[in-house]
Amino acid sequence: MGIVVNLERDENNGKDAFDQLHGLVAEDLKGVNRLIVQNMQSPVALIPQLAGHIVASGGKRLRPLMTLAAARLCGYEGERHIGLASCVEFIHTATLLHDDVVDESALRRGQDSANAIWGNKASVLVGDFLFSRAFELMVEDGSLDVLRILSSASSTIAEGEVLQLITANDTETGEAAYLEVVTAKTAALFAAACEIGAVVADRPAVEEEALRAYGLNLGIAFQLIDDVLDYSASQADLGKAIGDDFRDGKITLPVVLAFRRGDDTERAFWKRTLEEQEIGDEDLDHAMQLIDKHRALTDSIDRARHYGAMARDALGIFPDSDYKKALIDIVDFCISRAH
Amino acid sequence: MGIVVNLERDENNGKDAFDQLHGLVAEDLKGVNRLIVQNMQSPVALIPQLAGHIVASGGKRLRPLMTLAAARLCGYEGERHIGLASCVEFIHTATLLHDDVVDESALRRGQDSANAIWGNKASVLVGDFLFSRAFELMVEDGSLDVLRILSSASSTIAEGEVLQLITANDTETGEAAYLEVVTAKTAALFAAACEIGAVVADRPAVEEEALRAYGLNLGIAFQLIDDVLDYSASQADLGKAIGDDFRDGKITLPVVLAFRRGDDTERAFWKRTLEEQEIGDEDLDHAMQLIDKHRALTDSIDRARHYGAMARDALGIFPDSDYKKALIDIVDFCISRAH
Repeated sequence: MGIVVNLERDENNGKDAFDQLHGLVAEDLKGVNRLIVQNMQSPVALIPQLAGHIVASGGKRLRPLMTLAAARLCGYEGERHIGLASCVEFIHTATLLHDDVVDESALRRGQDSANAIWGNKASVLVGDFLFSRAFELMVEDGSLDVLRILSSASSTIAEGEVLQLITANDTETGEAAYLEVVTAKTAALFAAACEIGAVVADRPAVEEEALRAYGLNLGIAFQLIDDVLDYSASQADLGKAIGDDFRDGKITLPVVLAFRRGDDTERAFWKRTLEEQEIGDEDLDHAMQLIDKHRALTDSIDRARHYGAMARDALGIFPDSDYKKALIDIVDFCISRAH
Repeated sequence: MGIVVNLERDENNGKDAFDQLHGLVAEDLKGVNRLIVQNMQSPVALIPQLAGHIVASGGKRLRPLMTLAAARLCGYEGERHIGLASCVEFIHTATLLHDDVVDESALRRGQDSANAIWGNKASVLVGDFLFSRAFELMVEDGSLDVLRILSSASSTIAEGEVLQLITANDTETGEAAYLEVVTAKTAALFAAACEIGAVVADRPAVEEEALRAYGLNLGIAFQLIDDVLDYSASQADLGKAIGDDFRDGKITLPVVLAFRRGDDTERAFWKRTLEEQEIGDEDLDHAMQLIDKHRALTDSIDRARHYGAMARDALGIFPDSDYKKALIDIVDFCISRAH
């Protein structure tokens, strides 16, 4: 197909890139959505109710999209990737339910969170259910390699979440510890989602590894941008919620950079707000000013670009195809969200 | 070996029965304990800390004992049952951590619960970690049958816990719904723990099924007795905590029976305490009097004996052996706890 890959792409075409990827696997994705609804059923009515709420709450299905596209990139022509993509989304959904309990979030994607509606208890237990169902579905698929990859990703995610809990409210957290959290809690599942695409297509280890590296770096870039958006004035202009991480005392890269580049007065501000959780009405504005003053958002986006570049290069070993182009372009989608 | 099985056994010999089973697999159990400690390690120090607290808090390891003894009963002479028994304990421990969050328990086995020490968030996430580790260990073992049995048990447990949440505070819950909860939240893991003993020994389906039936019925009896103990005056005499279920508004069999056998005044009492959660200082005593008046504990123990008898009979197809005798006698151990 010989598509020329332009590495100096326009980052504003992110939305198009997403639509393109989405379009390429649209039929498969319909299958994923069917399987998701089908497999969250239970005679215990609260389970499909609560799970249905979060599943229907407008997620982009980015992780299952990765599995679908990775499998097709590897020339896979069967149907197994559809079931496995739904396992990936189940694992993701289970972690979201538990995350919202841990963060005491009242909102998820602009709607009431499941824990806000049904309580923390139900969210914990339905998360457990979805997680177990994911493994049941993998067992049905029957690949021990897939089971190994996704069970390992799952324990890594839990480790990352615990690490995030420990580093919260601790302004001594540096960029390395931050990256460790991000890699474990977010990138591990992106990596696994992509890798199993190669596994299901029965491709050699070098392609598995390439897709894993692609997913890992994309996941890091994705989370970096997510953390940028939480302090982004343009998000606020769009009416989107900002400042959640600030109020939770999460130590994300914008804060790590601003703290390290700041003077003693500024560090005292960060310690009061993030460590002692004494947060007044004006403090989020002040935090955003400090972050802006130290170019901490711009530089966080630059860091994301670095991981994005590695993600793109990881796909270099694959011959050109529409899938390859879409996966490369989706890197921009993940990064351009910050503009 | 020709051991005569006495079905009219003395239920006071329960402790001996436990010691006997324990003695038969003592070496295997040491291996399980080693694997548990080894596999809960993580560079994130809070994980082994929190997991170590609950793992060391004096559980009887009843479920892994089941796996060990079931495998040996089936003539298994390898080592895989040790790893699988530790998976079973990991799943159990994960559910305990989440249970304590859901029940807002401050105590577990007489000690501060993990959530009381480290908070709900850490308990949810470390539970997720242990659960994922269990699946990683199963994948290492490599049996898809075991993975199928334990992933199915896990989603059933979660369903049971959600059902328990729904039926809590609802005095209309009848014995059938109660049994559904008990079967799912407790007996499913006992059943799976026993069944995988036959699977690892590569025994025919009829033996898998027999061990599954044994575990299922034993698990129901075990939970029935657990629920009896929560209203048992003799427990209170021993200085053990009682009344947790009452304060949580859980609808257990003693309450189901007392409610159904009571008059309008009594039902009003149950509705005020269990449904409206208006509980005064004297109410637990009054609840225990009503339960006693309607012989609800005695009859709950009789129900447990019924399931215990089915558990024993399920083992009938196995030739006599020390393991068979110990598994049969452990039924008494589970039931005699109520005396």
